[in-house]
Amino acid sequence: MTARTWRGRVFIGTSVDGKIAREDGTLEWLTDLPARQHKVGTSAAHPALIWTTFCKTVDAIVMGRATYDTILGFGEWPFDGTHVIVLTTRGHIDDSRVRTAESIEEATHLLDALGVHDVYIDGGRTIQTFLRAGLVDELTISVAPIVLGSGRALFGALDTELHLTVRGSHATDDGLVRTTYDVVRG
Amino acid sequence: MTARTWRGRVFIGTSVDGKIAREDGTLEWLTDLPARQHKVGTSAAHPALIWTTFCKTVDAIVMGRATYDTILGFGEWPFDGTHVIVLTTRGHIDDSRVRTAESIEEATHLLDALGVHDVYIDGGRTIQTFLRAGLVDELTISVAPIVLGSGRALFGALDTELHLTVRGSHATDDGLVRTTYDVVRG
Repeated sequence: MTARTWRGRVFIGTSVDGKIAREDGTLEWLTDLPARQHKVGTSAAHPALIWTTFCKTVDAIVMGRATYDTILGFGEWPFDGTHVIVLTTRGHIDDSRVRTAESIEEATHLLDALGVHDVYIDGGRTIQTFLRAGLVDELTISVAPIVLGSGRALFGALDTELHLTVRGSHATDDGLVRTTYDVVRG
Repeated sequence: MTARTWRGRVFIGTSVDGKIAREDGTLEWLTDLPARQHKVGTSAAHPALIWTTFCKTVDAIVMGRATYDTILGFGEWPFDGTHVIVLTTRGHIDDSRVRTAESIEEATHLLDALGVHDVYIDGGRTIQTFLRAGLVDELTISVAPIVLGSGRALFGALDTELHLTVRGSHATDDGLVRTTYDVVRG
């Protein structure tokens, strides 16, 4: 396998207890944050990445089939001009806007062949797959001001611990506490 | 039961994936943070609680038997002048510095009888018990810059979601991202 030309990156929101969705998949506790008098400070010097600063720097996206289906439901395709790889074992997807990969090895070879630099890794299972493979270099986690008590976890079991360096952290008026981490290598 | 005269409060550190200890109970990933060039900002306006500002305001502590045994191992007793209740089903503890409660109801009645105001709820199982009973009013969580991949979770299953207001958040030079939340009532 050729030397990797790209960085694996995660940009995700979770609840305080580390859930990325309710058991039923609903997300409005994260997307429609209720108005509340959050008292927050922001790190002007070293802010965490926000979506507008993150997505401009991404030239490829790897997502799971569930995430792909969700985005199709939006109607408008938000990833024109970006390479999109859908990681799925449910067969080839007949959509000229995406490439299909049946394994992380196939996805990795596609990314190497494309010569991309910044890969947005999206979707809970895809993120766990890339974390286990050691292919995540950056994590931006936005923690919503709620404890769900049940739901799907962002993080699954890992064989090795992942050491991180904080690049930036800030809290928003909505009460999101967002932190960008770089994964420490070696 | 009499009206509650006190606030249940949590002050705990976790990994980014919400663990409070490794499976073997070790904590040095949280207590002995390696020197690393974390780039952090702090919220001067609304900082989260730190230990020195938190512990001064506490007049009672409820902890589990495992936490009590751990503190005994420290040699020096750090809680002189503070009411300490050990929540345990393993029988009365013969230690004049602590009171023993065999259930959360017994602990609650003790706290009401003592007329205390700020109760530090310590220990993973005790925190989960108080969360399930709706007796946590404040949460300060310090997230360490590591993904453990396995270990004990701070949060367990809850029947109802817990809505929070951010009181303060800051990041430390050690890469701890610490946030103080108030639990929203009603």
